[in-house]
Amino acid sequence: MKPYAFGVDIGGTSIKIGLAKTSGWLFETRKIGTPIDLSAESFLLNISEVIKQRIHARGLHPDDFEGIGVGVPGPVDEKGVVHGCANLGWGEVDVKGIMERALGIPVQVGNDANVAALGEMWQGGGKGYANLVMVTLGTGVGGGVIINRHIVCGQYGSAGEIGHLHVSDDETEPCGCSNYGCLEQYASATGIVRTAARLLDAHPEANSILRQGTPLDAKLVCDSAREGDELALSVVEAAMDQLGKALAMISCVIDPEVYVIGGGVSLASDVLMPPLQRAYKRYAFPSSRDTAFKKATLGNQAGIIGAIKLTMPDAKENKEKIK
Amino acid sequence: MKPYAFGVDIGGTSIKIGLAKTSGWLFETRKIGTPIDLSAESFLLNISEVIKQRIHARGLHPDDFEGIGVGVPGPVDEKGVVHGCANLGWGEVDVKGIMERALGIPVQVGNDANVAALGEMWQGGGKGYANLVMVTLGTGVGGGVIINRHIVCGQYGSAGEIGHLHVSDDETEPCGCSNYGCLEQYASATGIVRTAARLLDAHPEANSILRQGTPLDAKLVCDSAREGDELALSVVEAAMDQLGKALAMISCVIDPEVYVIGGGVSLASDVLMPPLQRAYKRYAFPSSRDTAFKKATLGNQAGIIGAIKLTMPDAKENKEKIK
Repeated sequence: MKPYAFGVDIGGTSIKIGLAKTSGWLFETRKIGTPIDLSAESFLLNISEVIKQRIHARGLHPDDFEGIGVGVPGPVDEKGVVHGCANLGWGEVDVKGIMERALGIPVQVGNDANVAALGEMWQGGGKGYANLVMVTLGTGVGGGVIINRHIVCGQYGSAGEIGHLHVSDDETEPCGCSNYGCLEQYASATGIVRTAARLLDAHPEANSILRQGTPLDAKLVCDSAREGDELALSVVEAAMDQLGKALAMISCVIDPEVYVIGGGVSLASDVLMPPLQRAYKRYAFPSSRDTAFKKATLGNQAGIIGAIKLTMPDAKENKEKIK
Repeated sequence: MKPYAFGVDIGGTSIKIGLAKTSGWLFETRKIGTPIDLSAESFLLNISEVIKQRIHARGLHPDDFEGIGVGVPGPVDEKGVVHGCANLGWGEVDVKGIMERALGIPVQVGNDANVAALGEMWQGGGKGYANLVMVTLGTGVGGGVIINRHIVCGQYGSAGEIGHLHVSDDETEPCGCSNYGCLEQYASATGIVRTAARLLDAHPEANSILRQGTPLDAKLVCDSAREGDELALSVVEAAMDQLGKALAMISCVIDPEVYVIGGGVSLASDVLMPPLQRAYKRYAFPSSRDTAFKKATLGNQAGIIGAIKLTMPDAKENKEKIK
């Protein structure tokens, strides 16, 4: 394996570019604002230009690089083509082709949630495991599925869309995806706030810190639950019941070794993990009840670290075989 | 690859042993009754004896064999050890070790539902696909998950236990697994009969062929639905709604290329497939709505054919890597 690799994590507001030894040492990270009003090609050529400058500034050469891994917020096929990124205003974009032509270094592309899962497997909460599901609890609920150390993309790039597992038949409001009763409607930051508002409305007699708090956000709900606020505890219990149910279903499909829980909401894991694991055990198929739960440990770095891992031979293997 | 392989499909009432060319031609199948009151070891030595006789009778030699694939009705780990088979009264049994010592031929072991999925991928309804989920609608609901042409076993051997996906929060009777609201409680032959009995009770005013039929079984329900019986149509619609919901959830996890539907109940696929595909589209994440649905075509042979496939290098690969 060659000694260096770049990892690029493209997000809606910023792009992070990391330079690492392929041994695993990330020794330089740059963050640039996500350009707006650029064509996808110019956008990617801009990133390529930054990479060229960093190679030059370090006195390195493209031949020193095993590859460049890129995480993008949209579905990616096994050829490195992205099929639409709502956040970036992209249609179909051949990320791999454009960047390889610009840089002369092999490029591997993955969906950002899947790439973050790979990062957590390599150096984070999932270290030592080969089969894991990463759950990202943020504004939405994202996921990444790793089987036998490889990302599972799925036919349409929608493997790991665990925020859209159907967990309730009774939902009357639509999810962002247009379906009703998706996990994301309950276990995301937005979902937790929505449940809190519903419970406050339904129980006008209930005293709760949540009535005084402004703004009513997921952090306030978790903080109040930590202080023993009963209504907040019910909100947390309801959210984790749905998440536990969803993870129990994932175990019926692929029976992973571990669930790695990350994302902003998971910062309150002291409050969330106990009801989550209780709910999981309640719904799980008997032989899968003891699946491990771990906290994600890489935070915002998971995307860059996973993107670096994406360049390595053992991560590429499955993709090549699939063709 | 060596020219011959055996496939063994161990079931609760019979054991099927197939002798094939590794090119894919199954040219001899024997069926023997499943012995009762034998230790697992004697049971497997009996099977090994039959295999030895067949090798001798054909004028062949153990060295002519690529391997022996064995499907068993229980969870199997990647070392070929079975962890309990309720139907056979087995605890932990080293099927691979026992048979390899007896025969001097490499043995590969898999769960019967997973092995059947592999068979359907190789020569059946899933031919030409690399990522598929097989659904077996019988007395229960079984499943097998194939990603990148390899069986997914899971940590505890419970990958593909799709009959135990939680699809209803309102169930009051327990499933065989002890949970409440499992897919199997609605979409299996037993589940279809249960729903029919419930609907007949709830609608005493409804005229239905099902009231006259004896016995009330899944075939009668499907036959009556085919003739336009309204109550039977509601039963079929309810069962396929739950199945479609469950498959939509599987797509959120692994997004397979195709669902292959088999098992006794699926003989009525003319009646079942249209409502199943409608329900699937209703629940599926938008980008996965066009996943293909195929009928299984190998019937009772899927287990033997998959067991033969299990011996081949491309099917073994993942198992070796995982160790």
